[in-house]
Amino acid sequence: MKCRRCGEVAQVALPSHHTGFCPTCFLDFFRAQVARAIRRHRMFGPDERVLVAVSGGKDSLALVHVLGEMGYQVEAMHIDLGITGSSEPIRAFVEDFCRTRGHVLHVVETAADGLAIPDVKRAVRRPICSMCGKIKRHWFNRFAFEHGFAAMATGHNLDDEVSRLFANTLRWDAAYLGGQGPTLPGEGKFVRKVKPLCRLTEFETAAYCFFQGITHWHEACPYSGGASFTSHKRLLADLEQVSPGTKMAFYENFLHTGRPAFAAAGKAGYGELQACAECGYPSSGEICGVCRARRMVAGTGPT
Amino acid sequence: MKCRRCGEVAQVALPSHHTGFCPTCFLDFFRAQVARAIRRHRMFGPDERVLVAVSGGKDSLALVHVLGEMGYQVEAMHIDLGITGSSEPIRAFVEDFCRTRGHVLHVVETAADGLAIPDVKRAVRRPICSMCGKIKRHWFNRFAFEHGFAAMATGHNLDDEVSRLFANTLRWDAAYLGGQGPTLPGEGKFVRKVKPLCRLTEFETAAYCFFQGITHWHEACPYSGGASFTSHKRLLADLEQVSPGTKMAFYENFLHTGRPAFAAAGKAGYGELQACAECGYPSSGEICGVCRARRMVAGTGPT
Repeated sequence: MKCRRCGEVAQVALPSHHTGFCPTCFLDFFRAQVARAIRRHRMFGPDERVLVAVSGGKDSLALVHVLGEMGYQVEAMHIDLGITGSSEPIRAFVEDFCRTRGHVLHVVETAADGLAIPDVKRAVRRPICSMCGKIKRHWFNRFAFEHGFAAMATGHNLDDEVSRLFANTLRWDAAYLGGQGPTLPGEGKFVRKVKPLCRLTEFETAAYCFFQGITHWHEACPYSGGASFTSHKRLLADLEQVSPGTKMAFYENFLHTGRPAFAAAGKAGYGELQACAECGYPSSGEICGVCRARRMVAGTGPT
Repeated sequence: MKCRRCGEVAQVALPSHHTGFCPTCFLDFFRAQVARAIRRHRMFGPDERVLVAVSGGKDSLALVHVLGEMGYQVEAMHIDLGITGSSEPIRAFVEDFCRTRGHVLHVVETAADGLAIPDVKRAVRRPICSMCGKIKRHWFNRFAFEHGFAAMATGHNLDDEVSRLFANTLRWDAAYLGGQGPTLPGEGKFVRKVKPLCRLTEFETAAYCFFQGITHWHEACPYSGGASFTSHKRLLADLEQVSPGTKMAFYENFLHTGRPAFAAAGKAGYGELQACAECGYPSSGEICGVCRARRMVAGTGPT
């Protein structure tokens, strides 16, 4: 197989695009897909400051790196969850990556907010993954808002988006289907959320990291019991195998046809929210879930 | 495992209903599911005449049989496609079934309308399965309309419905998603279409036939190259295996949430149609597809 652009030996085959590329042209393709996602979904412009959530996994490292390459005003943010034996080496790894590659890095320690995840796990009688996600999203948004970023970007790739869309479609979850997409506009204290890798598969992101010499953190969180969307991802991979392009078509047609239908049915946006009486950030109740968790950890709220 | 109702030994396990039944109670369950579908989707009443399309397969035989058992005014209709070596034995089999079980049977021969399928296959440069389906739907509807039936019923089961819904959801086909369901109201010369087996799986229909001593026609059409939804059915079976009830929830939530959203987006119903200049039945063009096919077979139209 030859590279479609330059005729050199292709190293990455992309059946869903009916093509294959050599490493150099693949990197061009990758950047072109990111540029297309940013433009088509009006994510941000060259004059806007963008904060990227960096976990240390391949998607977030690829994202901060490619946005930097493309000349965007990008800064990285890492959330230190305070899990002994796990959070320290990840943080050191991310700090090393950003130092080496020249990215500004901000680190927020949830422990400094009374929310070290092991303490939360002990205090809260709910699955820790959903609570941890809530805390991370809260702090990611709060930091972006307080430091004047125009947008906050996450490394969600096409496979992430499609498996999540698939799970929500199986349930016909109207709130999700009317509101989700690669760009969620800002509103009040919610900073605009964007997913610039939404047109790229997990394989393509891994290939980008490989050709750019980006090593990434592989170890799973000690608290995670295995990824929840694994069986959907496998199933969607089977569909893609039989009909290359299915995943992208499912996602794109959803954005074109499905989302507007649900949005028109009045299920879009953030819903009815008020300012949390404690932190001031949007909340569905008087006190937001993060502040409630902090109270539980401190022993000043219901457990 | 014991029958949930009577405590006898269960012979049919139904994980999606968290239950199992002995043969007698399973037949009650089956009829109750049919009754529920008819009631909930306002399919037809006891005073209305219902025409059932009978191909000879298990679903259509189960349908005509169960509706008869339940006391509905049901008559059967079989379409003889004129395929030598295939259509004759199927027709004889259906005639024998209806005679034995006491069902009124109407037979329409497409050859009498100039549309023997082998001739159509030779004349029309399109996949024969879609053309054959069009001819069958045309004649099924035409016969029901001309003979004053209130509704026409097909044996589509939950697996058929879910795999078709799934395929159309993967494409986010708004016209399908806004208009499809177990009952499609009549309009002009379109007779109401209903699917009373929509709450029952293929396995449940097969079990009903088995316990009722209904043998059915097994041979595939000589022109079919294999069912198109097979891979989706397998995939949905895998999902159902992991989470029993997924298929039913996907279908029911679609009807509750998905379909109204697309219907409100203005994509429902039969669309813009006119009367075919030749047969008078609804058509998207001046001459309907069936009449165009007849012209091609007769050599009086473009091929």
